[in-house]
Parts: sequence; structure tokens; C-alpha cells
Amino acid sequence: MDYQAILEEIAEEVQPFFGKGRVADYIPALAGVAPGKFGMAVHTVQGETFHWGDAAEPFSIQSISKLFTLTMAMRFIDDKIWERVGKEPSGNPFNSLVQLEYEQGIPRNPLINAGAMVITDYVISHTSDTRAAILSFVQYLAGSDGAAYDEQVARSEKETGHRNAALAHFLKSYGRLDNPVDTVLDVYFHQCSLTLSCQGLARAFLFLANQGVFPQSKARIITPRQTKRINAVMLTCGMYDAVGDFAFWVGLPGKSGVGGGIVAVDPGELCLAVWSPELNASGNSLVGAKALELFTTKTGRSIF
Amino acid sequence: MDYQAILEEIAEEVQPFFGKGRVADYIPALAGVAPGKFGMAVHTVQGETFHWGDAAEPFSIQSISKLFTLTMAMRFIDDKIWERVGKEPSGNPFNSLVQLEYEQGIPRNPLINAGAMVITDYVISHTSDTRAAILSFVQYLAGSDGAAYDEQVARSEKETGHRNAALAHFLKSYGRLDNPVDTVLDVYFHQCSLTLSCQGLARAFLFLANQGVFPQSKARIITPRQTKRINAVMLTCGMYDAVGDFAFWVGLPGKSGVGGGIVAVDPGELCLAVWSPELNASGNSLVGAKALELFTTKTGRSIF
Amino acid sequence: MDYQAILEEIAEEVQPFFGKGRVADYIPALAGVAPGKFGMAVHTVQGETFHWGDAAEPFSIQSISKLFTLTMAMRFIDDKIWERVGKEPSGNPFNSLVQLEYEQGIPRNPLINAGAMVITDYVISHTSDTRAAILSFVQYLAGSDGAAYDEQVARSEKETGHRNAALAHFLKSYGRLDNPVDTVLDVYFHQCSLTLSCQGLARAFLFLANQGVFPQSKARIITPRQTKRINAVMLTCGMYDAVGDFAFWVGLPGKSGVGGGIVAVDPGELCLAVWSPELNASGNSLVGAKALELFTTKTGRSIF
Amino acid sequence: MDYQAILEEIAEEVQPFFGKGRVADYIPALAGVAPGKFGMAVHTVQGETFHWGDAAEPFSIQSISKLFTLTMAMRFIDDKIWERVGKEPSGNPFNSLVQLEYEQGIPRNPLINAGAMVITDYVISHTSDTRAAILSFVQYLAGSDGAAYDEQVARSEKETGHRNAALAHFLKSYGRLDNPVDTVLDVYFHQCSLTLSCQGLARAFLFLANQGVFPQSKARIITPRQTKRINAVMLTCGMYDAVGDFAFWVGLPGKSGVGGGIVAVDPGELCLAVWSPELNASGNSLVGAKALELFTTKTGRSIF
Repeated sequence: MDYQAILEEIAEEVQPFFGKGRVADYIPALAGVAPGKFGMAVHTVQGETFHWGDAAEPFSIQSISKLFTLTMAMRFIDDKIWERVGKEPSGNPFNSLVQLEYEQGIPRNPLINAGAMVITDYVISHTSDTRAAILSFVQYLAGSDGAAYDEQVARSEKETGHRNAALAHFLKSYGRLDNPVDTVLDVYFHQCSLTLSCQGLARAFLFLANQGVFPQSKARIITPRQTKRINAVMLTCGMYDAVGDFAFWVGLPGKSGVGGGIVAVDPGELCLAVWSPELNASGNSLVGAKALELFTTKTGRSIF
Repeated sequence: MDYQAILEEIAEEVQPFFGKGRVADYIPALAGVAPGKFGMAVHTVQGETFHWGDAAEPFSIQSISKLFTLTMAMRFIDDKIWERVGKEPSGNPFNSLVQLEYEQGIPRNPLINAGAMVITDYVISHTSDTRAAILSFVQYLAGSDGAAYDEQVARSEKETGHRNAALAHFLKSYGRLDNPVDTVLDVYFHQCSLTLSCQGLARAFLFLANQGVFPQSKARIITPRQTKRINAVMLTCGMYDAVGDFAFWVGLPGKSGVGGGIVAVDPGELCLAVWSPELNASGNSLVGAKALELFTTKTGRSIF
Repeated sequence: MDYQAILEEIAEEVQPFFGKGRVADYIPALAGVAPGKFGMAVHTVQGETFHWGDAAEPFSIQSISKLFTLTMAMRFIDDKIWERVGKEPSGNPFNSLVQLEYEQGIPRNPLINAGAMVITDYVISHTSDTRAAILSFVQYLAGSDGAAYDEQVARSEKETGHRNAALAHFLKSYGRLDNPVDTVLDVYFHQCSLTLSCQGLARAFLFLANQGVFPQSKARIITPRQTKRINAVMLTCGMYDAVGDFAFWVGLPGKSGVGGGIVAVDPGELCLAVWSPELNASGNSLVGAKALELFTTKTGRSIF
Repeated sequence: MDYQAILEEIAEEVQPFFGKGRVADYIPALAGVAPGKFGMAVHTVQGETFHWGDAAEPFSIQSISKLFTLTMAMRFIDDKIWERVGKEPSGNPFNSLVQLEYEQGIPRNPLINAGAMVITDYVISHTSDTRAAILSFVQYLAGSDGAAYDEQVARSEKETGHRNAALAHFLKSYGRLDNPVDTVLDVYFHQCSLTLSCQGLARAFLFLANQGVFPQSKARIITPRQTKRINAVMLTCGMYDAVGDFAFWVGLPGKSGVGGGIVAVDPGELCLAVWSPELNASGNSLVGAKALELFTTKTGRSIF
């Protein structure tokens, strides 16, 4: 399929949607991003790559990083991760403490903040220098260009991240974290600060479209079963409080971040990454979600 | 694909799972069903039909009926239904009042009880004899054999359905029902009491696998867009509190009922209905879910 | 103490507070009450009576009626009532379903709506013609003048009382009501519609200031222990979501109704009833609460 | 009244209740306290003092310390404290985060943990060396003997206090704390670790029985109005989830701590402190609550 032509069509058709969302402004480092940035990248399991616009420019991937640590944790301990985190959509805001209290400190899924902290805690327990280990894993998957921690973002997250700190202490109070709260938060805030380009993301998560195997090197990252599980969790829990809408409009497993990035996986076929910093009311990239919708419409790749 | 052979393989492989669940017993009429019942039926968009076991025996479809009224409501007023009901997974039990209070009487989606009542209310507003209209619609889709109200079940539901009555009055208190509570409940309890066989179900919902068109008659039931919406809602909200698990294990849009039935849709290909009365902890048919998992594994039709 | 002079002082000092609240308007029968109405009545355990303004005019006592049924239930089964209702403040709106769900259908106390329904259910189980029995009990305590059901109010409550109906069905679903929901609601809506004057109320609840004994006749209504319990429940749960404020400003056990009445008990000394239809944000009579505050300030009778 | 004789009677009558509760064991320093300890002290506004048993032995006053910081905050900014904390009972556990989320970070009252942290934050903003200032204030009120921080307890609280840390970060995320979370927690954990004897407590809080004036020195600690407010908050919020029961059984404003201490105030008359480490299911001293009940029964001082 001529994905390049499709990306170009999309780029034209999303024009009217710029200026209708809001760049995340809870930390200065994110608020300063130019709202007009827009990039798309497609990597297919056959090894083709396509891109458009600012696809090579690194941006703050934020919650998309949860997929990296989830993958690492599955490699380390496989299904043991489900002892401390669920697999079901939450129906509550991504940083809510309420559900956590009613469910005794077991986060609903690994893609809400509390769940991702539990996953990060597992990763810490299985690595010596966790920050270096995560970065190295990301660079291995994404190629080295642009994969880095943004220390300014990490520091800002830490200084303003009291709700996340509350979640971490709350998890600790239920015995759901093995490592010290400060350690978990330090790694967590760093993983959120990771920068990658659309090209890096599309390359990095191509294994999710390929039964867990990294196509270039044929290296197995995770098992087919683990791959299926991550894709299922993405589809049912990956888009904050717009899971149902995303399933309808896009119909592919996806994960978004408040930096304006979204990664989507079309199993057996390709991985697609988009970036546009303006967010809609659900906290997902407004233009990015529209671009993904157009992509599945044009390619007929929706699952429904 | 030789679906008949696949059904036979499944029938053999699910044998060890009988006797491990629990037949619903909240009303006597359901508690009396033989736990060993097991049927499967597949209808493809090409017009082939396959079945196995008790596939022709009518059973209480319970919550699967929510798909019939949802379809009817969409035919009547299309996207206007979303004014009083959401499209997102709930993260709470199917009959919880808590979320409803926090969200001002807007049910999370049309497949939890409160949401289905709102839908039923819409259907009542657009039909003169609603019970007859629903039955007639079901018979049109399913073929007449076995499609009927089970008055004994409807009466039992009414007598014991105080939580549902609470939900309906609660919705009414928020102005989310146009018709009298008793009218809505009467229709609701009747739709839950509908009986159909696996064959009837597989035939009835084939339009969801065929862009909204009933294959036999080529009649359009709903638009492709509406079809996509129903399938998306089923995938993200159709299996009570096991949406994530079902997406992982089965990977198809599906809807279950406490009578032990499950309908699953493979868009573009087929509709599959299974029935086995024993339920797992999530309230879904234990053997039925296993059969569906085997089906998508054997056919390679999972979306992930 | 010269209570008459005190009432007259209060009447003057509360003048600036008229016109600052809002008459309850959820049913037409209440909305039509003249907002300027104002009455006060004091009955002492020594047999003195004092009154001012519209103290002889019957009004809708609404939630104050919960004290009558609570007293009746205690007479019938004493501490057995606590099996289905708690004794602690709720911290939630008087008609919330949320807490009820988290606490398995056990209402927090007998003075919130759900708790009062449980109490009413007990009363129904111990009387043959409950509506007549309640009215007769009220008339016995209050003297017959003005004690009556307002059928128009009862009907309105029923027609609009979907949240109360939701509570009742919810209680029933947890097995907390022995009688049919409709029966409980019928009695409940009737007790809420009871009309009494300030004089009637002050006379009726004087036994709460007198260790459970009706001073005139020396008849024992309830035991000293039961009296203490009702007074404690009133102080900690009697003023909707303004229990703490009322304890501070007034410092006496009290119970209010949305009809604008408040009854307060000064144990060992007197019972005081006030009526002014305009309500403050907490749903309590604005002028009435002010009058009570002035009363305890002037008499030095606050408990603190 | 012969309070000494009453204390002796009580000491005898509570004997059967020893051994029926459970010493707090969430930190080792508390778990090690001998369960048979029992002390009582009464200080009257006339200057009499009475005591019994281990009344001179310092123990961990825990939540009773909330009264000291509340008094300090009132002295500094009076009613301004109510901008960030409510005055109503909570109906939820003392350390719940749920209500805090639904009420946008405004704790229900100053005697639950989150509310006390807000108060401590105010105190920090108005003192230079807060820990020294609190200790000095306590020593001034209590007399110096035994008033001290137990650094071992403070350290244990900090190490295990993840739920409190979660509360503090949560408050901070809502902008309800002006000082750094770590600073607030450090002071908070220290105030909880304060040790005092029953005699110290009864002396310290006598001003609450005396319109805000410290009887010995005639020094005014707070205004009569502030005194009334603290007493009202104690009565409606001071006993965790047993406010209603305590109002019934004891009928005096009181505040308990998990160290087994309870302080009760009889306005105009006396202050009474009891200590017995075994707790009942509500987290209040089992023997202590019984002793207080006997005291008000014997003295006829209950407010009801």
C-alpha cells in the first residue's frame, strides 16, 4: 500500500484541526512547545518506512513510555506482574486515587499512572542502574537518535508531581511497591521525560505489530502471547478516558502521551506514530487522533 | 475455512472446563437450566451456517438483548442517543449506582444496566406497543424459531429486580428517562427475558459483521458508521468487568448474558454465538469464553 | 427564666435575616408557602409554654417526622433497630446512594432518608394500619390541633420522589426492608407530609427533654436510655450537612425539615420549635437556625 | 463533687474490660506498651486536681496533639483556618483519600489526618522553629513534666507513614499546603509523637472547659467563641468513626489517640484525661471510653 501518499493526504486533511486544542501547560517545559508541530511515521513489518513533517524531531513522549517499562517488566517476570496490577479499563481519571482506595491499592491497569508505577517498581527490582537500563532499552528499540531523558522535564515533573507522589505513597502504604517511594518516583518522572521522534517511536514499537519480534534484527523482544496482551491492554486502556471513542474512530491499539504523541499498532502490518502537541478534552493529541482516524479509514485497517 | 471442523475440535477441547463455573441462580427460572448444555453456531457473511450441540435450543439471552434495543434506538434517533449515555468502559460493576451519582445520572455506556434502560426508554418513545415491536424486530433478525418472551423469567426479574428498579428511579430523578419508571422497567425486564437459540443469535447479529446489512435480504439494518460504533462499544464495554481479558483471549467484539450466552462478531466475516450456562467469576459463560478463545486461536481471527 | 421576653427579643433580632434564604420548591405545595412566616414555641418540663408569631399555624414538618417513627420503632423493638441502621454521621448528602452501596445497604443513621425508610419499615411491621398508627401517635404527643397528613404534599412527594424510590429499592435489594417497597414509600411520603404547628412540635417532643416521660400525663414514651440515644443521634446527625455548624452555633440536639421547621431539645429543661420557610444552603431554616442560636446565647443553655 | 471517690469507683468497675482490646501495633514503639497501663486525671476550673493509677506516666498522645496545633492555628489566624478545612464530620475513615478527592482537597474537619496537616501547615507558616514552638506551647499548657517528642516514634511514623505522605502530597497537589510536603510531614509526625501524662493532658486542656482561659494564670489562650468551636468540632468529629456512640455513651466533647489516651471536656467544670492502651474496633481506648462513660453517668454530667 502506498503509505507515503496516504500520509500526505492526511497532512492536508488535518489542516482545519490545528488551533482547536490546547498544549499541555502543567509544566513550563511542555507549555513552550510550538503548537503547530506535526509529524507522522510509519514502519511496516516488511521493513518499509514512511514519514512526514516533523517526524524526525524528538518530543516528550510522556505516558507512551509506559509501554517501554511494561515490556521490560514482562521480559523480567512475565505474568507475575498481574499480581499487583489489573488488566481492565478504569473508568476513572488516569491519576485518580479513589478507585485505588476501593480496590486496596491494586491499580486497574498498567497504563494509568498508579499501574505504571507498580511496573516501574518491578523494573527497578530487576536492574542495577534502572535509569540507564531503560534508556538503553529504548535506544536499542528506537535507534539512538533523539532517545534521551529531558532532565528539565524530569525535574519539573518532580517539583509539581504531588499527585503522582500521593499515588506512589498510597501504593507503598498498601505494600504494592518493593522499592523506596523516592526511587520509584525518580525513575517514573525520568521515563515520562523521555524524548523520541515519531520515527523512533514507530521503529521502537514495531515488535508489537510483529508478534514480539524486532523485524530488523529478528530478535525476539517478548513472546507472541505477551505481545497480544500488551495490544489488548492498549486497546482497552491506552487512551485515558477516550478508550471507547478511540476504538470507534481509529480501531487500533494505541497509547497517547500529554506531549502530543500517539503510537498505534496494526498487528501483522505496521506501527504508526504521530505527534501534534495540541490536546483535546481527553488529554489526547487532537490532530494526532484525527490523523490516525484518517489513516485507518483510508487504509481500511480498522478492526471493526 | 472449515468452520464445522473447528466447532467440533472446540467441542472436544472445552470438555475439561465443564463443571467449573456456576449457573446463575438469582432467579429460579435461570437456576433450573441444565449446566451441561452447550451449543455453538456460526453464520458467515457469505451465507454459510455451522452449528454444534444445543445450537437450536432457545435460552434466556439476558443482557445480549441490550444489542437489539441499542440497534433499534440507533435506527430511531442515531447519535442523539449519546446525549444521555456515554461510550466508555465503566470500571465498575454493571449495576453500580455509585458512578451514576458522581456522573449526574449519565450511564457510562449502553451495555451496563443503567445505560440499557436509557436506551430502552428511547425505544419506548418511538414505538407504540414496545414489547411487541422489540419482539417483532428480534424475530425479523433471528428468524422466528425460539424468539419469545419468557414471562416467568420477566416476572421473576421484576419481583427480585430491586437494584434495577433503584437504577431506573435514580435515572428518572436526574431526568434521564422520558417514560414512567414502571413502563421502562416492564420493557427492560421483558427484553432480558427474551429467549433465542445460538442459531437465532448468530443469524440475528450477522449484520454487525456486514457493515449493517442483513446478508440474506440485503436489507440495511443500520449504517456502516453505526455498525462500527456498536462493535467498538461491544469490544470496550461488552463483557462486564472482563473487557480487557476478553480482548486479550478472544480479541473480538462480544456481548455476554448471565443466561450463559455470548455473541461475538468478526467484522467482514462472521457472527458466532455460544451457549453454556455455567458462569465464571466475571459473570460470563466459562465454557463459552473458552470456546471463543479457541475459535479465534484456530481461525487466526483475533484482532491482535 | 423569662422565655417569653427572650422569644420577643429573638423575633426582633432575626428581622434582618428574612429574605436571605430560599423556600423549598421541589414540590409546588411547599413552594407556595409565604416566606415571611415565622413562629416559635417553647414548652418546659415544668409545664410552662411560650410562643410567638405563627406558632399555632400548621406547616409541613417533613424530616422532623423521622423523630416520630424513630421513637415508635424504639418502642417496638428497642436496640434491634441498629441491626439495619447505623448511629454515625454520614458526611454525605442526606439522599446519597454512594455510601449506601459501599456499606452494603446499611444506612449511616436513622435521620438520613435511607435510614428513616428502614425505621419506617420496622414501624410497618409492628402496626396494622401504619398511616393511622403514626398519625394517632403524633396526635397523642402533639395534641390534635393541626396534626394531619397533607395528601397533596404526599402525592407530590410520591410523583417526584424518584431518588427516594431509588433508595428504597436499593435497600430492598440488600434485604434491608421487610415490607414491599411501595408500602414503605407510601408511609414514608405520608410521614413527610405531616403538618404540625410549632406549638404542637414543642409539646410533642418535650419527652426528649424529660428522660422519655411525657410531662403532662407522666406517661413514659421511651426509656431514659432510648431518650439519650435519640438526643445523641440528633446532635451528631440531625442537621443534614451542617451538624458541626449547628453544634457550634446552637449547641443543642436538633432536627430540621425542608418545610422550614426545626425542633431543638434542651435536656432536663425544655423543647423548642421554630418555623421559618426560607432555607440556607444546607437545607435548614435560615431564620430558624439564627433564632435557635440567639436562644442558646441568651439563655446560656449551649452545651459548650 | 468528690471526684476522687468517683475515679476509684471507676477504676474498680472497668476491671472486667481489660484484655478485650488491642494495643496499636502499626509501629513497634507503640506495640511495646504494657496493655495493663491505666491512668485517670481530673482538673477542675476551680483548681482542684484528682488522679488515679498511671496518671503521671507519659504516653504517646498521637491524635490528641491535633488539639494543640488547632489551638495554635486559631491563635494565629482565627477563622481564616476554615478556608482550607471544614467543620463537619466525615463519615469516612480518618485517613481516607476518597472524600478528599471528591471535595477538591478540602478536608472535612481539622481532626482527621488531612485536616490536621492543613492546620500544621498554618502553624508552620506562623512560627520560625515550629517543632520547638509546638513543644514550648504544650509545655506551657501542660507543665513541663513529660512533655517531649519521642524521636523513636516520630521516626517510625515517618518510615511507615506512607498513607499520611500520600495525604500530604494530595493536599499539596490541590494547593492546600503552603509549605513543602516534607516540612509539613516532619512536624506532623513529631506532633503525633508527643508524650504527655494524663495529668499533663488534663491540665493542658482545662482552658477548653473555661471559655479559653487558663485557670491557674488567668491567661487567655483563645476566645470563648474559639473555645466553643473547638468543643463543637470535638463532639462531632473527635472520636474517629465512633462520634455518635461517644456522644451517646459519654456525651462530652472528646478527642482520642491511638496511644490509648482520651481527653474529654466538661465545659464550665473540668477536663478529664484517661489512658489505657488497648483499643476497640473504632481505634479508641476501650477501657478509656468505658471509664469516661462511667464518669458522666456517676457525675450526671452528660449533655443529654
